[in-house]
Formats: sequence, structure tokens, C-alpha cells
Amino acid sequence: MNPITDILDITQPELAQTLQHALDNKTKPLGSLGRMEALAQRIGLILGTTAPELHAPQMLVCAADHGLAARGVSAFPSDVTWQMVENFLAGGAAVSVLARQHGIGLTVVDCGVRHDFAERDGLLIRKVAPGTADALEGPAMTAAQCEQAIDNGRGVVRGLPGNALLLGEMGIGNTSAASMLLARLGGLAVADVTGAGTGLDAQAVQRKIEILRDVLARHADAKAPLDALAAFGGFEIATLVGAVLQAAEERRVIVVDGFIATSAVLVASHLQPHVLQRCVFAHRSGERGHALMLAHLRAEPLLDLGLRLGEGSGAALAWPLLMSACAVLREMASFESAGVSRSDETAPANP
Amino acid sequence: MNPITDILDITQPELAQTLQHALDNKTKPLGSLGRMEALAQRIGLILGTTAPELHAPQMLVCAADHGLAARGVSAFPSDVTWQMVENFLAGGAAVSVLARQHGIGLTVVDCGVRHDFAERDGLLIRKVAPGTADALEGPAMTAAQCEQAIDNGRGVVRGLPGNALLLGEMGIGNTSAASMLLARLGGLAVADVTGAGTGLDAQAVQRKIEILRDVLARHADAKAPLDALAAFGGFEIATLVGAVLQAAEERRVIVVDGFIATSAVLVASHLQPHVLQRCVFAHRSGERGHALMLAHLRAEPLLDLGLRLGEGSGAALAWPLLMSACAVLREMASFESAGVSRSDETAPANP
Repeated sequence: MNPITDILDITQPELAQTLQHALDNKTKPLGSLGRMEALAQRIGLILGTTAPELHAPQMLVCAADHGLAARGVSAFPSDVTWQMVENFLAGGAAVSVLARQHGIGLTVVDCGVRHDFAERDGLLIRKVAPGTADALEGPAMTAAQCEQAIDNGRGVVRGLPGNALLLGEMGIGNTSAASMLLARLGGLAVADVTGAGTGLDAQAVQRKIEILRDVLARHADAKAPLDALAAFGGFEIATLVGAVLQAAEERRVIVVDGFIATSAVLVASHLQPHVLQRCVFAHRSGERGHALMLAHLRAEPLLDLGLRLGEGSGAALAWPLLMSACAVLREMASFESAGVSRSDETAPANP
Repeated sequence: MNPITDILDITQPELAQTLQHALDNKTKPLGSLGRMEALAQRIGLILGTTAPELHAPQMLVCAADHGLAARGVSAFPSDVTWQMVENFLAGGAAVSVLARQHGIGLTVVDCGVRHDFAERDGLLIRKVAPGTADALEGPAMTAAQCEQAIDNGRGVVRGLPGNALLLGEMGIGNTSAASMLLARLGGLAVADVTGAGTGLDAQAVQRKIEILRDVLARHADAKAPLDALAAFGGFEIATLVGAVLQAAEERRVIVVDGFIATSAVLVASHLQPHVLQRCVFAHRSGERGHALMLAHLRAEPLLDLGLRLGEGSGAALAWPLLMSACAVLREMASFESAGVSRSDETAPANP
């Protein structure tokens, strides 16, 4: 296993103060852009400038299958994972449409799909194995497989241009892995963090909870972040963990999608808390557990639209808000430059 | 006064069903795009198609001054109204930056600013008077002035291209007018609907409440929508009422910004309830009273970012979500076209 590189604290009190001063001097009542101002602050701090510019944003959609899916924890069959990969590449999935709308580069990674893809543009084959093992029988992946997937994620990000990474994923059964990671790393009851995923009914959710409870009990010793990740899976989450660590080291802006993408950030932040300084949380998912996961990370997401699709769709929907935050910092006039009176000044003479 | 044209109900059960069917057949779990699906429905119904396309969106920023401002109901002096109009036109205001980001046409209307502007591109002079009268002394405007402002708004919209209108405004003192319109038309206590506006402290808000209570008492008989509008002002709100009525008749998509823009929709909807079918509410403002105003209109806004800037800034920030909703309808693949298995089907053979 590569050592986890130390990720520097970028709190940067002086730059933070300069950014706040710049925002306070823009022609608007103090604080009136609400949470857009905190967003501008964050992006400025990540990129280390008062005039941040996002360029060549990259959506990374990591896909893999889950051994546990055979136990009926999802409303959809596992084959939907590879079928959706084809749909991403053909341009017909939600994330394809939204990435195209916003000029976001789209890279799909086969991290461990139970299907052989033909190589082609936009698809990277980084398959650790054709799906994880059944986590009820043993760990979903070995420590070596987990390390391989993380290294794969690091390598993929190293090869991507731009200064912003949007996290997406696809994997039938992966809300189960995310729920177990949250239960274990967040110390929460599995029933509180397990939801309907792609659309289970109440009875099926109950069965899912019972299965996840058994898996958690089976791996009671898997308490360290990487042990939990190996125990519960999946390859797409581990690849995203590597992507997050790499992007954080490179000080890219990391745009976090929903429940699964956030679970990768959860693992990464338990390895390296400073990764959270590089993250913008796009939305609060309708999937039960995501609100608790965000609370555990003290994250306040931008959107709350009841999305529960994954793929990176929420990250893509929130993307223009990041662009807006940068534009506000770069392009808005100050009171001085525009000749606008402040609240505490006498108005200049009406020319 | 022009008669209020009957605005047709566009509930259109058949089209609504067709739109829902189209959304349900997109390659995603049922309902998993959350409130984006309701947004797609609404835009489809307004434009009367299952493949909606928004073109040439127009931001209309209506500006005017308020006689009541002299009584200290705002943290900023009245001169900021004309100064900000200059800032809008120079491209340095938040709404200028955001409209530019999204390719939204920007038209500023002098509806009654206490300043003489030079005519120029992007500025329409539709000045009813240089500011409203002091509403504590008498009605803010006469019935004829109110009618004139509404007619101006209709005329401005008739001259604008495109099928979407975003509502913006500027007017020092106009949260007072909006609060009084809500108190009167919504039957709410003035203390519950009066906030800090551009940044009053608690003591100043208390004084503002007392002034507004006196103004409301002075015009106790102004209960009909247009009587209340004339009593409390302002010219920018009345112009927006006309703009909303005209845009609704033309079945444009109306994107409603914050507290002031919503107050214009409030008045328009009390004249013609069907205008609400043509509205998309962009955000819930941090200004006290906006949440209650939205609740009165049974409106669920898209964003909740604590914005309280006005100008149309929130409408511009939400705009890409409308574009996304249309793109989802137009461009996403169906389960059939993409060859993706449904939750209730046997998976097709893995080719």
C-alpha cells in the first residue's frame, strides 16, 4: 500500500480574510449572496487565489458490480451496471446529458464490472475483478484488491486535465456498501442509514437492513477505514477514494455527488481529514442515510432537490453554481469601482 | 385600466400524463431525479410540448424609488437605486455577471427612479414618476399611475424575444412595499413578514415594522389587489405585475426571483390565479417574509441558499436547472432505446 501522502491544511487565514474582504466590497449588501459567498471562499482557498477560474472540469464515473447484489439488496439486476456504462458512453444517461450541457469532460472507469467492454474513447478499463465477492461470505475484496483500486483512482486522476473533479458512480448494490461504511465509520445504526436505493419497497428495505446487519456482524473487526472498505466494497468506491486523495493532493476542487460518492469521501477523510477542505458537496440526496453522512462530515450541500440517481448527476446539476461563485469574485464591481454608496456613507452627489 | 385578459388553465391532463410517462421511461430509477422531474413537467406544460426548448431567455430588471425610503426603512440611501442601475448597465452587478455567464439577455427598466438617465442600449425609460409618494401621507401612487406602470410592463414584455422571462428588480425601500403587500393580500401580521432588507439591525427593523403598521392602518380600505398595489407601491413592482400578466398570457416560462419579484407574482396571481401555472420559483430568500409568501402561493422554490440580494440574482443562479430539466426530457435515453433492464424485468442476455 502506498503511504497516504500528508495533505496540507489550506485554511490559510490571510487568504481567507482577503477573500472575505473582496466579497464584502462587492456591490451588494453585506452577506447578501448567502451561501454562494462561502462557496466562493472555499474555491478561492482551494485554488489559492482571489480570482479563481475553473477550467476543464472532469466528471469521473466509476462503475463496478457487487457480490452482495445477488442477495436481492437492489431493485435492479446487476446487468444494469454494464448496460448503464454503455448508456453513459452513448450519451443517453442523465450524467451524459448534464455533462454535455455544461461542457464537463466525462470519463467512465470500469473498476470492476461483471462484463467485458470493448475499449473506446471515454472508457478506461481499470478492472480489479469482475465484481466484488459476496460480503456475507468474506470480505468483498482483499486488501491487495482494495489497494489496487485506490491506486487506479489515483492514476486516473493524474491523467485528467483541469482543476475540478466531479465524482460519479454506477454499481447495482452500491447503496448497501455505502450504508455499511457509514454505519461502521460513523458509528450509526444500520437501520438509520439504509434506504430504498433504486426503489425497494418497505418490506425489501427491511430485508436489506437484515442482510447488512449480518454483513456488519460478520466483519465486526473491520474498523479501520481501509479494512471497512475492503470488507464492504466496492471497487468503484475504492477507486473513488484514490481519486479523492489524488485530487486533494493536487488541490483540485472536488465536487461530491450523492450517497455513494460521499461514502468515498467519508473513507478518504478518515484517512486524511484535510481532503474535506477541497470538497464542495453538491446536494443532499433523497436516499436515507445521506443527510446523516453529510452531518457526520459537517458538510452543507448546495442543492436539496430529492435526487437519488447517483452517476454524478447531482454534481453536474450543481456545477454552474461553482462557476457563478468564481464569476462573482472575478467580475463583480466593488463599491469604489462602481461609485455606489455604502449603507454607512452619505450618498455622492447625483451627477 | 385594461381589462385583465382571461388566462387559460394549462393543467392539460393528457400532456401531463404524456410528460410523466416520458420521464418514467428515462434510464433512471422511477422518480430519482426528484424535483427536477416536477420542473420538467411544469416547463413542458407551459410550452405545451414533451420536448421543451428554452430560447433567448430575458432578464427584466425593473427599478424605481420609494417615497417611504425617506423615513429610514432601508439601510441604504435612495441614490443607490440609480447607482445600481448604472452598475447593471456597466456589467458589474451580480445580476449582470450571472446573466452574462448564462447568456441571458438583460434589460433594465427605469420604472420610476429619482434620477434622469441618458438613454442607451439595455435601458428602457418607462418612468411613471421620479419615485412614488410617501405611503404614510397618501397612496404611493394614483390608480392611473398604477395602471400606467402595469401597461408599461406589458409593453416591455411584448417587445422581448424568447420564451422565458426572469424577474429582477432594484429599488431602495422595496422590501417595505413587498412586506405590506403580503401582509394585506396574505392576511398576515406585519411583524411576521418584515425583515432586515439590505441589512437593518434589530432596532431598525422594529422601527420599520412600526412605520409599516402605520402605513397599513392609513390604507385600511386598500384590500383589492390593485388598491393595495397603489397604496403601498412601488412602480417597479407594478411594472413587474404587468410583465407577469403579459408573459403568462404569452405562455412564457416566468422565473421568479426573491421577495420583491414574488410580491409582483402575488399581486398578479390575486388578479389571475392561473399565472402561477407559468411560474418557476427560483429560490427561498433569506429575507424574512419570503418563506411565508411562497407558502401563501403554494410555491416550492428550487434553491435555498440564503440569498437576499434581489436584482434577479437568484433567478439567474437557478436558470441552468431549467435548462437541465429540458435537456433531460429532450436528450435522455429510454430503457427501450438504451437496452437497459427495468427493475421488474429479467435482464437481457449479456452480449
